[in-house]
Amino acid sequence: MNKPRKKAISARQSTASTPVLDWRIGHAEYDDRTGRVRQELEARNLDGLVLFHPVRMAYVTGFFHLSTERPMAIVISREGGVGALIPHLEKGHIAKASGVTNVEIYPEYPTGGGKHPMFHLGDLLKALKLNKRGVRLGYDNNGYLDVNGYDGPALSEIVAGWVECVPARDLIDRLRAIKSANEQRLIEESCVWGNLAHRLMHDAIEVGRGAMEIWLEASHTASQMMVASLGPQYQPMTIAFGFPAMASFTAGASTSDPHALNSAMGLRPGDVLVTYGGADVGGYVSELERTMFLGAPGKDATRAFESMLTLQQAAFDAIRPGRRFADVEGEVRSVFLELGLLEHQRHHTGHGIGLEGHEWPFIDLGSDDLVAENMVLSVEPGFYLPGLAGFRHSDTVVVRANGVERLTWYPRDLDSLVVAV
Amino acid sequence: MNKPRKKAISARQSTASTPVLDWRIGHAEYDDRTGRVRQELEARNLDGLVLFHPVRMAYVTGFFHLSTERPMAIVISREGGVGALIPHLEKGHIAKASGVTNVEIYPEYPTGGGKHPMFHLGDLLKALKLNKRGVRLGYDNNGYLDVNGYDGPALSEIVAGWVECVPARDLIDRLRAIKSANEQRLIEESCVWGNLAHRLMHDAIEVGRGAMEIWLEASHTASQMMVASLGPQYQPMTIAFGFPAMASFTAGASTSDPHALNSAMGLRPGDVLVTYGGADVGGYVSELERTMFLGAPGKDATRAFESMLTLQQAAFDAIRPGRRFADVEGEVRSVFLELGLLEHQRHHTGHGIGLEGHEWPFIDLGSDDLVAENMVLSVEPGFYLPGLAGFRHSDTVVVRANGVERLTWYPRDLDSLVVAV
Repeated sequence: MNKPRKKAISARQSTASTPVLDWRIGHAEYDDRTGRVRQELEARNLDGLVLFHPVRMAYVTGFFHLSTERPMAIVISREGGVGALIPHLEKGHIAKASGVTNVEIYPEYPTGGGKHPMFHLGDLLKALKLNKRGVRLGYDNNGYLDVNGYDGPALSEIVAGWVECVPARDLIDRLRAIKSANEQRLIEESCVWGNLAHRLMHDAIEVGRGAMEIWLEASHTASQMMVASLGPQYQPMTIAFGFPAMASFTAGASTSDPHALNSAMGLRPGDVLVTYGGADVGGYVSELERTMFLGAPGKDATRAFESMLTLQQAAFDAIRPGRRFADVEGEVRSVFLELGLLEHQRHHTGHGIGLEGHEWPFIDLGSDDLVAENMVLSVEPGFYLPGLAGFRHSDTVVVRANGVERLTWYPRDLDSLVVAV
Repeated sequence: MNKPRKKAISARQSTASTPVLDWRIGHAEYDDRTGRVRQELEARNLDGLVLFHPVRMAYVTGFFHLSTERPMAIVISREGGVGALIPHLEKGHIAKASGVTNVEIYPEYPTGGGKHPMFHLGDLLKALKLNKRGVRLGYDNNGYLDVNGYDGPALSEIVAGWVECVPARDLIDRLRAIKSANEQRLIEESCVWGNLAHRLMHDAIEVGRGAMEIWLEASHTASQMMVASLGPQYQPMTIAFGFPAMASFTAGASTSDPHALNSAMGLRPGDVLVTYGGADVGGYVSELERTMFLGAPGKDATRAFESMLTLQQAAFDAIRPGRRFADVEGEVRSVFLELGLLEHQRHHTGHGIGLEGHEWPFIDLGSDDLVAENMVLSVEPGFYLPGLAGFRHSDTVVVRANGVERLTWYPRDLDSLVVAV
């Protein structure tokens, strides 16, 4: 099932008429996205959409920014323009956003001596003809997010009496779930550098060294190579204070927690490792996780590893366009049951991935939604044996007409994942 | 004004009876925090408080975790216990939290085949006797946050008809603003490693090298030294996928944006740099920022630098316990006015800092709140001259009885911040 190594080329999208960096999404695609948002507004009988989440703002306009207590919003009018609410601080950034027709700038949060930023949003809605009687306005959140101590009135409070405000968080998230060819290229490129970080980390693992020492070094080296390769215009978009390319792992008994925090503990023979590798390319990420062993595993761990492979293969096989996610999860669950591991399953099989490490949809018994072509998903059925270890591979896959294509090509087999001691 | 270099000792808090790591906040302090929360609930006539923000959860219980689409909450009853809502995934982590008496575990999000996690929260509130008629319940958010595609009902919807739900986001944030001696020690320790990262970066700056190449290397080296020094138990708490200690900078014209994204561009003589240094120690962070020059600055830049120093000194001098933040900001503003720079001021003077890089309170014209002893603040009046550069130092200070003590001791003067070309 291993794919040949990807060519480490960056996604080329710039043309003479769109002078954007070639690892970025171009203006044409942002136009296409706002077009699809407007179709969806039509279908939902909404006159506009207010987005407060930074990733949704970036998705529709390319406006990537640091999210702080200073509220920002993007407003898409069905019939009119695209508005942006920003603090004075971000004046330079918004010029790089795509398709924004109306910019409302406020001095500062909480007021900077003026009025609260949310009332500036009211003005922006007025300018877009969306703050008047009879308007139906969708939102991802009924007000700005709870970031860095921000507080303020709800959207429905600043337009009260005039506008009907309607929850529509899923509108953008559903569009995001289907990845364009450009997005898939960026995610593939993310896999290239996540793979490198993981390989460097893998090769540096040895008894006695600290876990954090090892993965800091590998992440640093891979990031330097990535930056050198992608060129001086490279910017990490989502990970403002971290590594462009990153690998890490947890080791020993702590792997029996699925989301263990990182640790600097020294490695010991017999440790089971659960790893991670990924990178930020144009804001897109990927997920590569492997269960590894420091020294040949014993019988119990070997059997658990083989069960985990069986479960992941069952999950790969179960994902096909048109199936309900609940049915996919149900099929994986039946394999957990056959293997006698259901009680140790502590999370569902996977999730969407793209601009965020986790995003809608979820491969879960509670999801009636359908698998669709060009969705990008993590596939990571795992189980956690108390006192022994956690067992989980995670691969990033794209859904094709006949099933999944794996974008992470790191070896999955036991021999490749045992570090000699 | 430079302080002598801090001793690089970690904050010792563990005793035989509280076997926590010595760079962590101990159980006694968490007990004290929940005690103060209960006093505040009494004062506000609230029977309980529901917290959905991960940092507020960590503040009252030490439950640091990765925030994802799987909702979590901490509930503090005024008369009873402390409850935690967690997914099955986090079962191992919650045991390390302090003072939690009731744990409600749900299988998975969106349902894992059961009911939506928010209805499990209803059960938890029932167990804590907080889901019955006549109860007044405070919350930081009326439902779980908008993280990774999560969606679900509001808190007020799952308790509708029974419980009065009241916004109380500021309750914890106001407690957090006053730092204990332990918290101050962790922030001081954060300054130690942020200072090291910044110094290593400073010494590596040279014409032609890429900005990102330089700061990745310095952050990596400082992080390795920090991890080696703090010992194998060290864990970054807030920065799950990044550097324990970090320095970075933006260079050239992009510094005229206050929150410029990072870039890998090569450095040129004449570049103005706006830098950052910080570290995560026990979840606490700090902020060190400097305006630097690649080659001796010209007349305009030198005058701008001196104005910036004047503004920062005015801000240091203006901060005293008992003053309104609006008055502090007003005093700094009058200096901006005198210097003819008001039109280029693009943000207020500073903000609280601790478990988050930005937190309440804000030094802003719109803040009627009072400066208080043991608040830790960033002090960073800045201005941004289009086509020239941005000018901003940021220091982390603690408010003492007579004024501020600077915790970041990196040199502020021009000579120390010019890199020879």
